[in-house]
Amino acid sequence: MLRTGVVGASGYVGAELIRILLKHPKARLTYLSSDTYKGQPIGKAFPSLLGVDAPVCEEPDLSAASEKADVLFLAQHNGWAMQHAGSLVAFGKKVIDMSADFRFADTAVYEEWYKMEHSAPEAARTAVYGLPELKADRIAGASLVGNPGCYPTGAILALAPLLANRSIDLSTIIIDSKSGVSGAGRSKFELGYMYSEVEGSLKPYGVGVHRHTPEIEQELSEIAGEPVKVSFTPHLVPMVRGILTTAYASLAGKPDTNALVKLYRGFYSKAGFVVILDAGEYPATKDALGSNYCHIGLKVDDRTGRVIVMSAIDNLVKGAAGQAVQNMNLMLGVDERAGLDYPALYP
Amino acid sequence: MLRTGVVGASGYVGAELIRILLKHPKARLTYLSSDTYKGQPIGKAFPSLLGVDAPVCEEPDLSAASEKADVLFLAQHNGWAMQHAGSLVAFGKKVIDMSADFRFADTAVYEEWYKMEHSAPEAARTAVYGLPELKADRIAGASLVGNPGCYPTGAILALAPLLANRSIDLSTIIIDSKSGVSGAGRSKFELGYMYSEVEGSLKPYGVGVHRHTPEIEQELSEIAGEPVKVSFTPHLVPMVRGILTTAYASLAGKPDTNALVKLYRGFYSKAGFVVILDAGEYPATKDALGSNYCHIGLKVDDRTGRVIVMSAIDNLVKGAAGQAVQNMNLMLGVDERAGLDYPALYP
Amino acid sequence: MLRTGVVGASGYVGAELIRILLKHPKARLTYLSSDTYKGQPIGKAFPSLLGVDAPVCEEPDLSAASEKADVLFLAQHNGWAMQHAGSLVAFGKKVIDMSADFRFADTAVYEEWYKMEHSAPEAARTAVYGLPELKADRIAGASLVGNPGCYPTGAILALAPLLANRSIDLSTIIIDSKSGVSGAGRSKFELGYMYSEVEGSLKPYGVGVHRHTPEIEQELSEIAGEPVKVSFTPHLVPMVRGILTTAYASLAGKPDTNALVKLYRGFYSKAGFVVILDAGEYPATKDALGSNYCHIGLKVDDRTGRVIVMSAIDNLVKGAAGQAVQNMNLMLGVDERAGLDYPALYP
Amino acid sequence: MLRTGVVGASGYVGAELIRILLKHPKARLTYLSSDTYKGQPIGKAFPSLLGVDAPVCEEPDLSAASEKADVLFLAQHNGWAMQHAGSLVAFGKKVIDMSADFRFADTAVYEEWYKMEHSAPEAARTAVYGLPELKADRIAGASLVGNPGCYPTGAILALAPLLANRSIDLSTIIIDSKSGVSGAGRSKFELGYMYSEVEGSLKPYGVGVHRHTPEIEQELSEIAGEPVKVSFTPHLVPMVRGILTTAYASLAGKPDTNALVKLYRGFYSKAGFVVILDAGEYPATKDALGSNYCHIGLKVDDRTGRVIVMSAIDNLVKGAAGQAVQNMNLMLGVDERAGLDYPALYP
Repeated sequence: MLRTGVVGASGYVGAELIRILLKHPKARLTYLSSDTYKGQPIGKAFPSLLGVDAPVCEEPDLSAASEKADVLFLAQHNGWAMQHAGSLVAFGKKVIDMSADFRFADTAVYEEWYKMEHSAPEAARTAVYGLPELKADRIAGASLVGNPGCYPTGAILALAPLLANRSIDLSTIIIDSKSGVSGAGRSKFELGYMYSEVEGSLKPYGVGVHRHTPEIEQELSEIAGEPVKVSFTPHLVPMVRGILTTAYASLAGKPDTNALVKLYRGFYSKAGFVVILDAGEYPATKDALGSNYCHIGLKVDDRTGRVIVMSAIDNLVKGAAGQAVQNMNLMLGVDERAGLDYPALYP
Repeated sequence: MLRTGVVGASGYVGAELIRILLKHPKARLTYLSSDTYKGQPIGKAFPSLLGVDAPVCEEPDLSAASEKADVLFLAQHNGWAMQHAGSLVAFGKKVIDMSADFRFADTAVYEEWYKMEHSAPEAARTAVYGLPELKADRIAGASLVGNPGCYPTGAILALAPLLANRSIDLSTIIIDSKSGVSGAGRSKFELGYMYSEVEGSLKPYGVGVHRHTPEIEQELSEIAGEPVKVSFTPHLVPMVRGILTTAYASLAGKPDTNALVKLYRGFYSKAGFVVILDAGEYPATKDALGSNYCHIGLKVDDRTGRVIVMSAIDNLVKGAAGQAVQNMNLMLGVDERAGLDYPALYP
Repeated sequence: MLRTGVVGASGYVGAELIRILLKHPKARLTYLSSDTYKGQPIGKAFPSLLGVDAPVCEEPDLSAASEKADVLFLAQHNGWAMQHAGSLVAFGKKVIDMSADFRFADTAVYEEWYKMEHSAPEAARTAVYGLPELKADRIAGASLVGNPGCYPTGAILALAPLLANRSIDLSTIIIDSKSGVSGAGRSKFELGYMYSEVEGSLKPYGVGVHRHTPEIEQELSEIAGEPVKVSFTPHLVPMVRGILTTAYASLAGKPDTNALVKLYRGFYSKAGFVVILDAGEYPATKDALGSNYCHIGLKVDDRTGRVIVMSAIDNLVKGAAGQAVQNMNLMLGVDERAGLDYPALYP
Repeated sequence: MLRTGVVGASGYVGAELIRILLKHPKARLTYLSSDTYKGQPIGKAFPSLLGVDAPVCEEPDLSAASEKADVLFLAQHNGWAMQHAGSLVAFGKKVIDMSADFRFADTAVYEEWYKMEHSAPEAARTAVYGLPELKADRIAGASLVGNPGCYPTGAILALAPLLANRSIDLSTIIIDSKSGVSGAGRSKFELGYMYSEVEGSLKPYGVGVHRHTPEIEQELSEIAGEPVKVSFTPHLVPMVRGILTTAYASLAGKPDTNALVKLYRGFYSKAGFVVILDAGEYPATKDALGSNYCHIGLKVDDRTGRVIVMSAIDNLVKGAAGQAVQNMNLMLGVDERAGLDYPALYP
């Protein structure tokens, strides 16, 4: 059994990693750290975890983490992992970073969008962007994985087959995403995340400036083999979990919806967590609740010559903790579905 | 005091008309009809209306309606008003139809999208599309107004200044809308509208085929002076009221956000219910809850040369009953804000 | 037209007072103060109030308030009004305090439950507890009104007729209340009020120690003419507005439900905002949304000899701002329904 | 591996049974039936189950069920199991009925409350009421288990230790329960369960007449060794899952809260799914979401001599499908936690 640890256990991503790792057939949870809850059982942070058999939260400490775990999930704020992941890798650990620190091969892009100097550009260059449906092989050989952002996961999975197949005009991509509030994490006590402000309210934010934009562009550009720019608009939705992404692009040819469904099914034939819906059916965030699945629906709009691609994921699972465990599985050579092959909670 | 009546009082639009008309300074509510609740007080349909001073619901009947009211709001299913509005107008009544029957000057378009023969094409040709911010003068002279759909209201208000000013490439318009569930009305008892199915779920529907598409195109084409086609995608959101529309288009020139804010403020300088937000601020559906306001935010994305326009309305007020009363005010020559000049309910 | 002012305009109760006073037929809103938003239009605090015609927020200042308004609503934290209400009254102002400072005739009770010294016990003794359905006459003659808490409003209205009529065993009263989150106000940025924590979660809090307990007991004791103790348990519900109170007591005699409905209708025959539902019908918080109504339902349970009384109010309206305006109306000798006679927003 | 089947797979309880059984270490899912979805994969009924490896839904048929499964879960309407469970048991099957048909030893009680003749009173007498925390031994020997109702599960677990220990006055028990909407199932397409009606609304229903009342009384009476009557009031809450029960009773003695916490921990020392919270902490429905746990909090109110006990469960798991699998585990002699030992989904 593999020993796994979570640095930053008391956030939503931390809780979700714990929930998944506790039931993983090949892993044990042997290390938890949390500044806020150090010295306390995780049930203090999350009463939902009362009674589970998990280690007590420790103060974050690299050598303790190294000693107690073989794989480490870093669920800290941006800027933390760039300082610490290197030594963990040097100790022979497998490291999966949940922050943005290791998502960009070109740290100049990171520095521009995250307004922060990157202290480990070399590590960033060799780190692998952990989107298993596109990079399983490279992930399998990696020691350090930058786990994708939640929005990029939904957007890239929705668009990749079209770019790989050169089916669309690359200059026309528009990505309109709608996310549940848990994406904001558990530590931002701001007016905008209070229940009475969020309930009944849908609103855009970060229009034109959201940091997930360059991440999406990096990956789409790699698939396309040329620079791709997208318009990306996130929206906050009165629900806890889930991201629904609606992507638009002008088609290069004149395929019908069924042809694209077939293309997608071919492209994702080995992807155990991607479900391509039949023509005429569309994804709903609820269908992915608590699961690692990504549902994708397609529609060719003949009137305008555009394709509309819609994807639904759970932002905390396929968009964070579940994908991280999927990456771990690949890094360790076990079935990528291990510990993740359960359906969504419905309703 | 003007005598007003609602045909179809027991739906959500009916209830909202009642709520507004009860407090209108120039109108009295003198006639209500409902198939389901005939012979009963409206409080039987809506306990929220227990104790209000409103007429008992009658069985729908044109001559009773004619006799008891000067202005009639028809809140029936599509296909009803085309058969009955004509005689009401002939009786000298002012008629505001909440259905789609009188929104299309070209009834061939109606017949194509609504899969129904139109029995009153001539009346449709002379009816006025009741969007007061664009057609106040024509509405003022009308006897029959086709009250706009909820999505078209938000979408057209968001885009009109750009088209009037020729600021965008007309072939690039994408409209991504998100609506609360009350838009589906009170009489469709379908699985998809049950609480346990909707809560926590955001999903697209009617992709590429929604009937509000030709309505949006009709109005945008009229403003542009040439045919305009749009991609329009509605989404169902786990909230009761509100539509947030996010519209995208490629800019013809290189204005900055402030220039467009100024353009919009000029365009809507006489529109008492349109609020143009400062650059950097974006609308939220909650800010319009229960009110007749439409909030609009703008963002120029220099990276892609696109403008993103976002509008928020309450689908049952500015998107239905409130706009209908605004139309009535214009038809009767009273201040368009009469009975509607109260702010949103917050939070 | 009466000049009215709100001290503490940027909380939820402040916003609600503004919403109501803006449309009041006998009042103008002439003064707003807010520490947080001083010097700014109220639309900065609440985009829902963009475009309304309201005074700019000033820094709280007693002489400015006195000079600019005849009636002042104090919507500050507990402990503020006891220091300032006295001078406002001395200036000849009518004062309605939204905090707990003037709800207790016996300030020893206040001091015990609020853990704070009361600096104005004499003013507290002469202040009137502002529940219009029970104390209209005294309110009419008052200069200083302590506006009731939200839970007490729902609970006392539910139980008053039973106590006045000696229909129940006073030692058996249990009050189980369920409230929307807006009752916590807009300034507590705590984990427990974050959207992701509240959504999907119903939980009790303050069990056995909630500060509204002695307030309920004070009023019920006064009605009963002897000391009454109750068990009161509040619960936080995943909704924004509304309090549903379920009260239980053992019946002294053997009335049936209809007899009690009749008793209640008699008791509240002059109360314009209390709706007693028919036997077999029960109140729902949504039916009171945004309105000043209180709906009450009754059930005699023959099996156990108990009566169950259920009341629904909007905690921010009948439970706060609406009731305050109702009190103002009485203090000024205008119809108690002025500015408040609109139905709930539904759905 | 045990072969298990679900009769009535397309309801919420059916979906939840499938979700749990698919991951059960000792069981395989070998039979599904559904009238509505016969001949179709379960993913047609629940897109959340797209891609899972489950049998196609068959038309309900006893001999097919018998042939294909060793344990059968009957998730049908009341009145179905009483006709069919007998033959399944005669075929040697283990049967767990999710309806009310086998919850009452005395079928006269069933007939009175369910307004239906009971066709299998003898089977009902020998069936075991499947509340594992109280009847593990009897369940272990049973062939036919009546799985408890959702409300009774929460209420009985909350009160059992007090009755077993004679700590309360049996005539004073009041049970105020609040449930998410999924308890109404997936097939009642009624106005009262539509999203726009439920959202923002909390309301009581079935006051004094809810069918779970006699079920609670049967079990509490058995524990007390004498007839117990309770007041039970259920409420519908705008959330999908979860039941929070608040129970009140007058204490016989004068224990403090800590003493009762200790009593409960002793009583439930072998119950793997019951968590007794520390004094001062209270349960929240969200903490049990999707899990088989029951959280219980306690408070002694010295002022009134009452104890308030609060329990939280997920109505579809511990209140239905999870408890059914727990019963199956006991019936088969495997660890009662098998397949159920995962924490709640949070947030």
